[in-house]
Amino acid sequence: MDAKSVINKLGAQAKAAAGIMRAVDTGAKNDALLLAATVLRREADEILAANALDMQAASKSGLSESMQERLQLDAARVEAMAEGLEQIAALPDPVGAVTNLSNRPSGIQVGHMRVPLGVIGIIYESRPNVTADAAGLCLKSGNAAILRGGSEAIHSNRAVAACLRRALVDSDLPQDAVQLVDSTDRALVGELLKSEDFVDVIIPRGGRSLIERVASESRVPVIKHLDGICHVYVDSNADLDMALDIAINAKVQRPGVCNAMETLLVHRDVANEFVPRAVHAMQAQGVEIRGCETTCKLVKGVAEASEQDWQTEYLALVLSVRVVDDVEAAMQHIASYGSGHTDTIVTRDYDTAQRFLREVDSSSVMVNASTRFADGFEYGLGAEIGISTDRLHVRGPVGLEGLTNQKWIVLGHGEVRG
Amino acid sequence: MDAKSVINKLGAQAKAAAGIMRAVDTGAKNDALLLAATVLRREADEILAANALDMQAASKSGLSESMQERLQLDAARVEAMAEGLEQIAALPDPVGAVTNLSNRPSGIQVGHMRVPLGVIGIIYESRPNVTADAAGLCLKSGNAAILRGGSEAIHSNRAVAACLRRALVDSDLPQDAVQLVDSTDRALVGELLKSEDFVDVIIPRGGRSLIERVASESRVPVIKHLDGICHVYVDSNADLDMALDIAINAKVQRPGVCNAMETLLVHRDVANEFVPRAVHAMQAQGVEIRGCETTCKLVKGVAEASEQDWQTEYLALVLSVRVVDDVEAAMQHIASYGSGHTDTIVTRDYDTAQRFLREVDSSSVMVNASTRFADGFEYGLGAEIGISTDRLHVRGPVGLEGLTNQKWIVLGHGEVRG
Repeated sequence: MDAKSVINKLGAQAKAAAGIMRAVDTGAKNDALLLAATVLRREADEILAANALDMQAASKSGLSESMQERLQLDAARVEAMAEGLEQIAALPDPVGAVTNLSNRPSGIQVGHMRVPLGVIGIIYESRPNVTADAAGLCLKSGNAAILRGGSEAIHSNRAVAACLRRALVDSDLPQDAVQLVDSTDRALVGELLKSEDFVDVIIPRGGRSLIERVASESRVPVIKHLDGICHVYVDSNADLDMALDIAINAKVQRPGVCNAMETLLVHRDVANEFVPRAVHAMQAQGVEIRGCETTCKLVKGVAEASEQDWQTEYLALVLSVRVVDDVEAAMQHIASYGSGHTDTIVTRDYDTAQRFLREVDSSSVMVNASTRFADGFEYGLGAEIGISTDRLHVRGPVGLEGLTNQKWIVLGHGEVRG
Repeated sequence: MDAKSVINKLGAQAKAAAGIMRAVDTGAKNDALLLAATVLRREADEILAANALDMQAASKSGLSESMQERLQLDAARVEAMAEGLEQIAALPDPVGAVTNLSNRPSGIQVGHMRVPLGVIGIIYESRPNVTADAAGLCLKSGNAAILRGGSEAIHSNRAVAACLRRALVDSDLPQDAVQLVDSTDRALVGELLKSEDFVDVIIPRGGRSLIERVASESRVPVIKHLDGICHVYVDSNADLDMALDIAINAKVQRPGVCNAMETLLVHRDVANEFVPRAVHAMQAQGVEIRGCETTCKLVKGVAEASEQDWQTEYLALVLSVRVVDDVEAAMQHIASYGSGHTDTIVTRDYDTAQRFLREVDSSSVMVNASTRFADGFEYGLGAEIGISTDRLHVRGPVGLEGLTNQKWIVLGHGEVRG
């Protein structure tokens, strides 16, 4: 079969499964998730054997060490996948919630009912745990998933997906609610991105080049996250001890993730005191500093930041530092160079905090907290399928509710329109 | 300037205006809307003179009568535009609403804040009132609008847009919050659809070919409505008098609109009684019937429906009628042939009603009410910018809230992540 036929077949199967999953009750979905956890534990040896094949191929093909680290499974990681499914089973089911049901002058009652999106395509790299996590979230939210993992993880993904499908069958649910694109042919990705007749949304997870390819090629709507250029702005009347704690945490605690800070903005009134203190504290933690002109004057030996630095997501122990005139200038900088991910202000001023919250157009806007909190678990979503820096549908961490939408329901008593 | 430069300029101006509009308070937006209504009334003669130019050109170019009817303005239609803006001013402002603010174990408070989408491109045909309506809704929801009306309405649209921009300037708001693509060059539409750096969503309003072009070409996310193939299903224990009233209203009251019924589905247990009665009542109203085999047997002289009929949005006094085995078969028919717009069941059975509400995957699902109620005004939105039959972001009638989204806000007290 050619790539188009393969995807059309998977798509038609997924659509049929989605039509059934939409109406499955919460208990049945939870039972299937718990069973899937059991099957994963039972088949752990099979999964690890499959993963060993991937690891051999990865080492032969010279896959980078960090990619190999992400690819590798062990007993603990399989157990974590199983526990992840159990956690998803324990989450409240968003589907079916009716809200805002109210009476209209015509006599009808109108309200919203939360419903699954339909068929969700997930395109991801390396980490085989995404196969279980993403399938579990789609299952719980009543959707059908088409999973397209990286070719480097094909054996692992196949083994994990088989466990989920086994659990679906044994729960009398359609096994095609979870399907893996079981081929490493890259043309299949292209076809998946064109399958708007079958697929309702594509969620890419992986490196920048993957996301960019998906965003530029897809005919299907995409929920995506490109960059995390996050800012901490230290206002003129910030508690400077708090500001330092937040800045250090935002930069250093886990520099390689999208909600880590990349640029520190400091109000000029506190720059003399705060900038040298922050720079030295960062340097003591191994952070390389790239500063604006004022920063370089305030601290000897700091390299000057280029225009490029302000728009770079370092994902490393590098930080750009800029002194700004006021909150207005800070927000302008964020609007110009930020990626709409997460930005925080440290301040004691009520009006400035309110203004920052209202005017900064990022998926997460914070006052007096580390950018590192921008996360589905920290926000109480229980689990996340990704993060959106888009403007439509869902912003920030995407949990179960982000995999649903609301339709209108009308309850009448024979009303007709006059 | 070439098409790309024109759109980039409009886009950059719109983005700058959106950055300001995002933070404008409700009172200032309402004042601008009320002033725009005043300016429209004051400039009514200018608008009608501009419209006369469009009508002359339309008559010369042989524009269809129905298109000319839509294009034509008179004093009453200008007054209606002004009143429409006043109605939008009176609607609650969705922007800034904070919901679900709750405490997390880490100490932070997390919640949602409703915010504008940003820059909204509206591509539409014929009716110059869309210029005022769409601009008004975008303004109230804190967005910037780029309006691209049909070339046949260029003079009218220019005159109306000038009134809105005048009102913005006189209200100390950025006039580029409302911009008209002031050219009939079709290449500009193509560029607008590629301007994902500036435009956050495109809303096409018009005939099928326009919507299809936009959907297939756009790199910007689209909120659209393709077909309205709406169904009324008469269940075995329906109140048949009610069913007839609803069916007649859904088909006849305004057959040319998207929420009119195109197919009547009847449970076989009541077909003998209901089908002849419904067919004769429809025929008495001038409706042409195309029936399934059973329908043709029950009523002499009814033309047989082809496979094509079930998937056709007649937008006319034509109705396909099909007898089905049960609610399951009715829902299958709707899933196969419907367009996800609006479908209604007439029944007295609680379980069947609940099942239909839950399982039919349309933007509006109704019990015992005419499909004609699927409308922003009837639902209490106050006004609508369009209808979405998509699955992402917003379904059904799109009002002010559909032009917004929710970002996350975090209120901390110096929390850092451990």
